[in-house]
Amino acid sequence: MYSFQDLVKLFAERFQKKHFPPQPSTLYDAADYFLQLDGKRVRPVLCLMANELFDAIHPAAWDAASAIELFHNFTLIHDDIMDKAPLRRGAPTVHVQHGESTAILSGDVMLIQAYEYLNKIPQQHLHLVLQLFNTTAKQVCEGQQIDMDFEKCNNVALKEYVEMITLKTSVLLACSLQIGAILGGANENNQQHVYEFGKNVGIAFQIQDDYLDAFGDPEKFGKQIGGDIVANKKTFLWIHALEVATPAQHKTLQQLTVENPADKVAQVLSIFKDCNVDVWAKALKQQYFDIALQHLEAVDVLDERKQHLKALAEYLIQREV
Amino acid sequence: MYSFQDLVKLFAERFQKKHFPPQPSTLYDAADYFLQLDGKRVRPVLCLMANELFDAIHPAAWDAASAIELFHNFTLIHDDIMDKAPLRRGAPTVHVQHGESTAILSGDVMLIQAYEYLNKIPQQHLHLVLQLFNTTAKQVCEGQQIDMDFEKCNNVALKEYVEMITLKTSVLLACSLQIGAILGGANENNQQHVYEFGKNVGIAFQIQDDYLDAFGDPEKFGKQIGGDIVANKKTFLWIHALEVATPAQHKTLQQLTVENPADKVAQVLSIFKDCNVDVWAKALKQQYFDIALQHLEAVDVLDERKQHLKALAEYLIQREV
Repeated sequence: MYSFQDLVKLFAERFQKKHFPPQPSTLYDAADYFLQLDGKRVRPVLCLMANELFDAIHPAAWDAASAIELFHNFTLIHDDIMDKAPLRRGAPTVHVQHGESTAILSGDVMLIQAYEYLNKIPQQHLHLVLQLFNTTAKQVCEGQQIDMDFEKCNNVALKEYVEMITLKTSVLLACSLQIGAILGGANENNQQHVYEFGKNVGIAFQIQDDYLDAFGDPEKFGKQIGGDIVANKKTFLWIHALEVATPAQHKTLQQLTVENPADKVAQVLSIFKDCNVDVWAKALKQQYFDIALQHLEAVDVLDERKQHLKALAEYLIQREV
Repeated sequence: MYSFQDLVKLFAERFQKKHFPPQPSTLYDAADYFLQLDGKRVRPVLCLMANELFDAIHPAAWDAASAIELFHNFTLIHDDIMDKAPLRRGAPTVHVQHGESTAILSGDVMLIQAYEYLNKIPQQHLHLVLQLFNTTAKQVCEGQQIDMDFEKCNNVALKEYVEMITLKTSVLLACSLQIGAILGGANENNQQHVYEFGKNVGIAFQIQDDYLDAFGDPEKFGKQIGGDIVANKKTFLWIHALEVATPAQHKTLQQLTVENPADKVAQVLSIFKDCNVDVWAKALKQQYFDIALQHLEAVDVLDERKQHLKALAEYLIQREV
């Protein structure tokens, strides 16, 4: 069986090919430009790993993996327009490089091309995979909308934030795994466990993401610590801090978002620590990770087949970058 | 058999239902808002009519028709963002009403929902319909990109313009018809004739569109005459005028696009008439219409089954509004 690293390499080789015709180059150069920026390719590889959990990798799993990666890139291109993000993967975003209209259109054709890859899936699985993919795709759009809505909202409850993250991030990881499982001939019960494994790993992953932004090792993290704090982003840490803060701390946190002083990051981090937000976040992450592992354990295949997926999940939520 | 008007009414009744869940309302209200603006629903009805050409309307044809209408609306929402259009169907566009980010996302979920309707198509037809739909969807995006590219280009050849219009407008009409034919059990030959009928009607339709903008009856047309001329849009008329104009006329036309004098429309129309552009456009429209009719005639079903489609095509290219 293949490790995550093996499959990242194998998938990258296959995914390097041209996904679009050469003309009109004004459209497809923009799409190609974004795809050649190296992504982590976590989602397609999850699809392949879940497929191999049940059987040797099916040719259609490679197509499904390509569809999932194209879908993910479509969401990034459109999200970057909405977020007015100048950079992605260290390079100018598509709307910066090719203009906003072409960025919208290149995202659109990427989504359509994802369905073209799904259409290579054998007839007996096509309907179910499409249904899961469509549901997930709509959820991801919903998650992005709710995330934007939260920007204008001062009081986001933890439960609402978890729901948003589930839609925006987790369900695609879960869907990638379930599609792999479907194509591997998994029964419904196993499919559901694989899905729930991915969903909970996704939430744990996001907690780690939020944690690193505040408490990561600056040397390993590679980005400036406190980026989310500077941007007034709602995160697991921020929402929990507001929930447990004293009235005085609560007031300070709210004031800091308005006044944006030079030492804002240091002040917020100090309150985070006083509130034990870091300890809480690690424990919450562990909770979701434990649930994820329980679902992986419940999958009815030999334990040794699960080792690579388990190792990947551990890596994703322990990573320091 | 149903007439176009019958099917517009029947389709409108079915299409009125909710296509999206209520939450998040910030996303789906935008999508619902656009769908309740009355469109002509030509494309879905073409699908239904082509279906009835071969058999009683199949339940799946209604789903395919919904998919096609959703796809068309997705393209309109995104095109309106790119064109910075303030109005559509007499009402504010989605990006004006709900903001650009939500407009992008509501277009995205509409495209995904189109695939959800396609996924209701019986297994034996699903693969072929998806293939045709995907190819067409990509072509429509290509057409939009090429149309935008033409805005920055002074010399567009008639052949290039026809290709752009074919991609941007005609192939979706053709695809709608072919999907109806596929679901009606038509053989490949009949499918191709139905497709070509739609493609050529689409080009004739666009010629009429361009013609009406310059030579329509202001009282019947309902819009200001010369809107395309004011906006310096490449049209069938403009491109042909440049091709046949004398050097002096050519220079005047080019100058008018730069100088935009108050009597620009009158001056351009005067040159159009001197160049017999109106006569040429009517003849060209007739050529495409004749080709369309030949393909309709070649469809291997009883002539009487074709009457409603023929009447619709005549209406579409003779309309004065």
